[in-house]
Amino acid sequence: MMKIDILSLFPEMFEGFLNTSIIHRARANGYVSIAIHNFRDFALDRHKSVDDTPYGGGQGMVLKCQPLLDCLETVVDRESLVVLMSPQGHPFNQSTAKRLSQEKHLVMICGHYEGFDERIRDYVDEEISIGDYVLTGGELPAMVITDSVVRLLDGVITKASHEDDSFADGLLEYPQYTHPYDYKGETVPDVLLSGHHENIRRWRLKQSLKRTLIKRPDLLSQRKLSQEEQLLLEEIKKNIE
Amino acid sequence: MMKIDILSLFPEMFEGFLNTSIIHRARANGYVSIAIHNFRDFALDRHKSVDDTPYGGGQGMVLKCQPLLDCLETVVDRESLVVLMSPQGHPFNQSTAKRLSQEKHLVMICGHYEGFDERIRDYVDEEISIGDYVLTGGELPAMVITDSVVRLLDGVITKASHEDDSFADGLLEYPQYTHPYDYKGETVPDVLLSGHHENIRRWRLKQSLKRTLIKRPDLLSQRKLSQEEQLLLEEIKKNIE
Repeated sequence: MMKIDILSLFPEMFEGFLNTSIIHRARANGYVSIAIHNFRDFALDRHKSVDDTPYGGGQGMVLKCQPLLDCLETVVDRESLVVLMSPQGHPFNQSTAKRLSQEKHLVMICGHYEGFDERIRDYVDEEISIGDYVLTGGELPAMVITDSVVRLLDGVITKASHEDDSFADGLLEYPQYTHPYDYKGETVPDVLLSGHHENIRRWRLKQSLKRTLIKRPDLLSQRKLSQEEQLLLEEIKKNIE
Repeated sequence: MMKIDILSLFPEMFEGFLNTSIIHRARANGYVSIAIHNFRDFALDRHKSVDDTPYGGGQGMVLKCQPLLDCLETVVDRESLVVLMSPQGHPFNQSTAKRLSQEKHLVMICGHYEGFDERIRDYVDEEISIGDYVLTGGELPAMVITDSVVRLLDGVITKASHEDDSFADGLLEYPQYTHPYDYKGETVPDVLLSGHHENIRRWRLKQSLKRTLIKRPDLLSQRKLSQEEQLLLEEIKKNIE
């Protein structure tokens, strides 16, 4: 069973997330244990302060070493991977999610306020950013990482579901349709009703390639294409010109 | 006041998020109103089903048009921007956050399960992805976008705080330090105790440039550098070689 410990000043932010849907089921079925630790409990002064003004001046407050690192010490052992949620981290992606899903024990530190004392970085194995945008804290990033990692754990969802994922094979997903056949005049493409499995497979692959080419050409250039994919892509490019 | 409506099958996932910290305060102070709508309430059959098997076969279920779009119809008006949370969307970043923070009414649709009927896309103004990883649903992405947008609304946090943000000026943040001066043998850099504002500013700018160069050179190449920044960067590169 994977163990996840999250250090945060806002444990109540995680409640809805932990008690819902796949995460709830994965916990109930013993695939993962998740605990949230409020490092404010480790503050030593009677105001329970966790931050202070920055040396050298400037806006806002900075998280102090002591409460956070004392809390960290109570959860880490030799098998822990300590991850700091930080806009400066390496960008999180599906291959990082896969790598983290192999760990026995993940510890995630959520900052808040303006930033944290630089010396906290000495106690951290890696820094991860979920994207190039500014959030009020590391709580949502920790949930995002938890969600993407837990769904990859053996048994949590069926394996075939992973393999259909966008990004899992480096292409965007093909268009999906369900009932009714006609929704306010918009109908389902004929090929999907043909029952011809090979034609359906080929149509879906072509749609995936087309979408990726149009919406995310950067993904295509990172990927090794099969011969069939190369031929389909040439066909698509010819039709676009 | 900005209005945000979120369509989701898991409204309870938002509870911790909505009642915490900055979002809670922004709602309480009238800067934003946020409502979550469960589109399962719009399903017409007695099982309240929102999804069905895909045309053409394949793993998993596909969200149907009817419940979701009937729900959408009850919340949109001419001023709404309808955003679909989707791994196929354009990658979310800080400039998208700024643009969305200018909108009067944001409507966010959270998918779940394998995917949604392609025809839903006809009712959507744009698709956004918060990163190249697979999540179990659009709920966390909707929270991420809400968090990053709401903190940019006038009055929610002080303006000076924005300007210090990572990415806000295209560079990673410089190292921050707070008390104590000495934490287990690690001390604060002398310049920050000097009281010399110009030296502190220059040291911080240099550290920001250095970090960005090492950790995220892609950000540097997207940014126009001032003359001072160019000179500092040359200095940094010389020392690294």
